Amino acid sequence: MDVEIVAIGNELLLGETVDSNSAHIGRRLADIGARLRRITVVGDDPPRLAAALREVRGRSRWVITMGGLGPTRDDLTREVVAEVLGRPLRVDPDQLAIVEEKFRRFGYAEMPAYNRSQAEVPEGARVIPNPHGTAPALVLDEDGFTLFVLPGVPAEMKALFEEAVLPELARAAGDGALVVRSRVVHTVGIGESALAERVDDLVAAAAPVEVAFLPHTGQVDLRLTVAGVPAAEADRLLERVARAMTERAGPWAWGVDGTTLAGALGTELQRRGWSLAVAESCTAGGLAAEITSEPGSSAWFVGGVVAYADRIKVSLLGVPAETVACYGAVSEETCRAMARGARERLEADVGCAVTGIAGPGGGTPEKPVGLVWLGVETPDGARTRKLAAPGSREAVRRRSALWALGMLLRAARGEPEP
Amino acid sequence: MDVEIVAIGNELLLGETVDSNSAHIGRRLADIGARLRRITVVGDDPPRLAAALREVRGRSRWVITMGGLGPTRDDLTREVVAEVLGRPLRVDPDQLAIVEEKFRRFGYAEMPAYNRSQAEVPEGARVIPNPHGTAPALVLDEDGFTLFVLPGVPAEMKALFEEAVLPELARAAGDGALVVRSRVVHTVGIGESALAERVDDLVAAAAPVEVAFLPHTGQVDLRLTVAGVPAAEADRLLERVARAMTERAGPWAWGVDGTTLAGALGTELQRRGWSLAVAESCTAGGLAAEITSEPGSSAWFVGGVVAYADRIKVSLLGVPAETVACYGAVSEETCRAMARGARERLEADVGCAVTGIAGPGGGTPEKPVGLVWLGVETPDGARTRKLAAPGSREAVRRRSALWALGMLLRAARGEPEP
Repeated sequence: MDVEIVAIGNELLLGETVDSNSAHIGRRLADIGARLRRITVVGDDPPRLAAALREVRGRSRWVITMGGLGPTRDDLTREVVAEVLGRPLRVDPDQLAIVEEKFRRFGYAEMPAYNRSQAEVPEGARVIPNPHGTAPALVLDEDGFTLFVLPGVPAEMKALFEEAVLPELARAAGDGALVVRSRVVHTVGIGESALAERVDDLVAAAAPVEVAFLPHTGQVDLRLTVAGVPAAEADRLLERVARAMTERAGPWAWGVDGTTLAGALGTELQRRGWSLAVAESCTAGGLAAEITSEPGSSAWFVGGVVAYADRIKVSLLGVPAETVACYGAVSEETCRAMARGARERLEADVGCAVTGIAGPGGGTPEKPVGLVWLGVETPDGARTRKLAAPGSREAVRRRSALWALGMLLRAARGEPEP
Repeated sequence: MDVEIVAIGNELLLGETVDSNSAHIGRRLADIGARLRRITVVGDDPPRLAAALREVRGRSRWVITMGGLGPTRDDLTREVVAEVLGRPLRVDPDQLAIVEEKFRRFGYAEMPAYNRSQAEVPEGARVIPNPHGTAPALVLDEDGFTLFVLPGVPAEMKALFEEAVLPELARAAGDGALVVRSRVVHTVGIGESALAERVDDLVAAAAPVEVAFLPHTGQVDLRLTVAGVPAAEADRLLERVARAMTERAGPWAWGVDGTTLAGALGTELQRRGWSLAVAESCTAGGLAAEITSEPGSSAWFVGGVVAYADRIKVSLLGVPAETVACYGAVSEETCRAMARGARERLEADVGCAVTGIAGPGGGTPEKPVGLVWLGVETPDGARTRKLAAPGSREAVRRRSALWALGMLLRAARGEPEP
């Protein structure tokens, strides 16, 4: 079951907008066992658009266009579709009422005349109202050819795709359709090659599930994909491999699919009845911000100190001035004292500290850019970890925050730090 | 001067990768006055790729392909190009030496046989070595048709595009080529429609420069674009409009093109010889993290307190417990006391505070989600600002942090808060 996309808009060719719509559709088609075969991007240029539409009509059973349905002079998809398919434009009374009603609600006494074009549809088109905007989706049926005409604004495109396109394609594909499905097992605190070594035999035994390693800054995801089997079989296979991978990744695994690391940490901390405070130097708020990106984190997160200047480490966190003087701000000793200081000064059950050299300046041969100490102190005791983080200032900071969350999660689970 | 792209890879059609390469090329072509006319995306599928190559060869003078040059069985671009252009593959001795050398450096005694394919090139192709990988770029010349064959990995594609493609296209376009160029004027602290009203007459007078409003969370950028004029003329026109817009946007404007808001703030604070400390509740480290994303910010940024729990506002920032009790944690009075506390407790010249309700829970009829107070205290005095931030938890937090930076910038410039 093959599908093509025609994406329309000068902004895509001038590079002002990246076409993320097509990737979204590609993923959703794979979910139902359909397959995106070609994407064609053209500008707001009637002859070139008409040529592209004639080509796809001669080649594919199912075609989706996106873009060019707005009210301005640039937006010519409606006219070109009407011409190529030989279906003159007619005002659709239902759609006209919808467009007029929207303008009344925006407080206009009368609708601008050029918005009337948004109520024009090629003869015989099915019209699907747009819940997020004025341009409806259109579906044009010919013998052995179906054209779905969608707006290009991502939120509108996605809503109309789910409502008007996907169900019809899924019906055509049928229940026994062979799908492509994926799940993602998340890890933090382990590099790509070390993780690959750890799960090596499982990767080989996973077939027909394929395992891809997706390294992000500070995290490595395992993407499990299975293709060419019916949906129920795909889900069963993926569940089995996701379980095996999670178990083998052990202390480094923190969740599957759409969960967040901060959310997983919050669940563990609440299970223990522990509150958390942080002390940050190089991440400078990035760890606290990541934690509090989780709604409801105020139930277990107390607050923190951003101790960017060394004197703040002493004055607000109670790190002994001699510790900083003797060992330096970036040292295991200072890190340990910062974690304790966060725990004591903010009266929390758990304290976590990050101190390091994010760069680009500030490195020395003994303490190079990317050297970071992480520390955690809980009612069970204290632990530290040294990190040699590669990459840019932002990469060092991001990795440090995420690895600190991983350390906290292991401590809350009662697992030793490997 | 029209150019086409053929992007190759199953990952693009399955939606695993978004094609950002094409947008990059579109922008760079506009810079030299060439124009991207069509993008075709196909999978790792020889018949479909061959069909696409035959089409573009019959249609366009200049074509760029990306992807499918790796060493694995999927990577078939070389073979298909050779077949479509009728140029048998030959081992290129220089390229073979490069590939073998790379494998020696990686510590392999011998190169895997299938990597030999990376040294095969269609007869008569120009071969441009890849500084970041093993697959070279290939240029194939026919009478009235030039095909540039690039790898798909973005870093490799970009480097080879700059080296092998752009100079040749720029030469062909010539000096008098009519370019498309843009500049961006950044603002913060003002909404899109208020800004539009403020600069309305300048937008009308800017022609042939076109002005677009690009709203991001917490910021509105003005993108100035001029098309269809020679490069020097474009730069002159853009400079004039950028100046006029900056002046008119007044207290809300903070920079042009690639500068950062934190960098602009740092410059002003250093001019005043002022250091900065922050007190954050709802942004919870996001403001400090944004500030310290700027390298060298340790010269003027001291640190901060993330006072997520109310008791931290009292214990670490010295906010009177009665103030929190009487007015609430989200109030002008508490915000003012937090800014003072940051300044005094962290011994900085300037204190800045953010306290608000980021949601999704926690709102009341009197204090709804999105209500945020911002406060700044400097040696010149104190100021506060109330913000009704729309959108998600992340949007409220992001807008609050950026508007606080804007307030700090105005205070450091000695401008009144409008």
